[in-house]
Amino acid sequence: MPRSISDVPDDPVFVFDLDGTLVDSVYQHVMAWQRALDEVGIGLAVWRIHRRIGMSGGLLMQAVLREAGRGLSKDLIDEAKSLHGRYYAESLPSIRLLPGTTELLQALDKLEIRWAIATSGQPEDAQPVLQLLGRDLDSVVVIDGAQVPFAKPDPHLFLAAISRLDVDPHDALIVGDSVWDMLAARRAGALGVGVLSGGYSQAELEATQAFRVYNDPQDLLDHIDELGVRISPQS
Amino acid sequence: MPRSISDVPDDPVFVFDLDGTLVDSVYQHVMAWQRALDEVGIGLAVWRIHRRIGMSGGLLMQAVLREAGRGLSKDLIDEAKSLHGRYYAESLPSIRLLPGTTELLQALDKLEIRWAIATSGQPEDAQPVLQLLGRDLDSVVVIDGAQVPFAKPDPHLFLAAISRLDVDPHDALIVGDSVWDMLAARRAGALGVGVLSGGYSQAELEATQAFRVYNDPQDLLDHIDELGVRISPQS
Repeated sequence: MPRSISDVPDDPVFVFDLDGTLVDSVYQHVMAWQRALDEVGIGLAVWRIHRRIGMSGGLLMQAVLREAGRGLSKDLIDEAKSLHGRYYAESLPSIRLLPGTTELLQALDKLEIRWAIATSGQPEDAQPVLQLLGRDLDSVVVIDGAQVPFAKPDPHLFLAAISRLDVDPHDALIVGDSVWDMLAARRAGALGVGVLSGGYSQAELEATQAFRVYNDPQDLLDHIDELGVRISPQS
Repeated sequence: MPRSISDVPDDPVFVFDLDGTLVDSVYQHVMAWQRALDEVGIGLAVWRIHRRIGMSGGLLMQAVLREAGRGLSKDLIDEAKSLHGRYYAESLPSIRLLPGTTELLQALDKLEIRWAIATSGQPEDAQPVLQLLGRDLDSVVVIDGAQVPFAKPDPHLFLAAISRLDVDPHDALIVGDSVWDMLAARRAGALGVGVLSGGYSQAELEATQAFRVYNDPQDLLDHIDELGVRISPQS
């Protein structure tokens, strides 16, 4: 934590979750998991899968197997993950950026506020939707589930992103749609900012200590002053 | 409201919503609407569609058009509704009963507690999932969106179901997964009981005055004493 005024940077950095935060892909992930789990013999109500999206795939499988009263076999987990990847890939044509994603990232660039993306997903799931950003991806800091030992709600993904931006965790704002983002932000020692665009409710995000909650990237941009970002240098 | 003890019936009647309450079909409806709206040129984030499921199709279209900043044309609405019906039908093979649906309805039958189903959906959407109940549907009271002038959150569907069960609204427990069920229950003068199985959160259902909230039909059955239902006649 800052010990004096001089420790407080002028601007925070931003770390964004990907699915449900910048890209409207949560429901496609949910349906792909349902189909994959169904195929390996795990019938689970869809809302229970929805509430696990954003976790690491391994933790998701562990949680759903427990809920389904089933044991954990590595082969079963690998098969379900592989089927999920295949069915999710099939749904890619229906996936869009969320409203305001492009405008928000452009506004941060213009203000020279640095940002990164940190996703529990595997690179093969993340790459196609990252393309939607329409940017040179070599210039974007992206940490995915393959780069760290543990994904959300562990803090590794966010800590890796924050480290790449070379700031202290308490100077980072972590934007995510799921309670796993908020918990991982807390564990990383950063502030979590919630968005409703993944289908979690305001109350669920607030209960996991969201600093603020917005509808989507556009709504966050419209209220970015609440996060201490000065659009005009005079303000 | 009851004016004396003699006005209080021994048992309540139950009116169940269908999608997300007895049957795990909300997410399939969501994806079918997204695809349909996309095809008529209305790009809308999926979570916003999810939060409108359970309303009448006409009100859903009115709400999403307003959110998309578009005008309301009857042709456009009819086309989107028709596309939704087609895409939803394609997803029927993946749709299952929610956990405990069969057991809950059997338990009510055994206790001679009457129940009905009231859904905003059109009969062509409702019939295939009603088949999953494995019952003679001629013996089940079903009110659908085609039988009343206004669907949820208007109270007509629930009032029609309650009238068929020949009780006063205040003696009916209305079980649903969406805030539109809770609002329509309140407007009907009945108690709304929430289930989380449609993907709304506990806080959202409680904020719309749910009397109690359970995970799904199985969880409701496991706690049915909380609703004043006596499993054993001695209790």
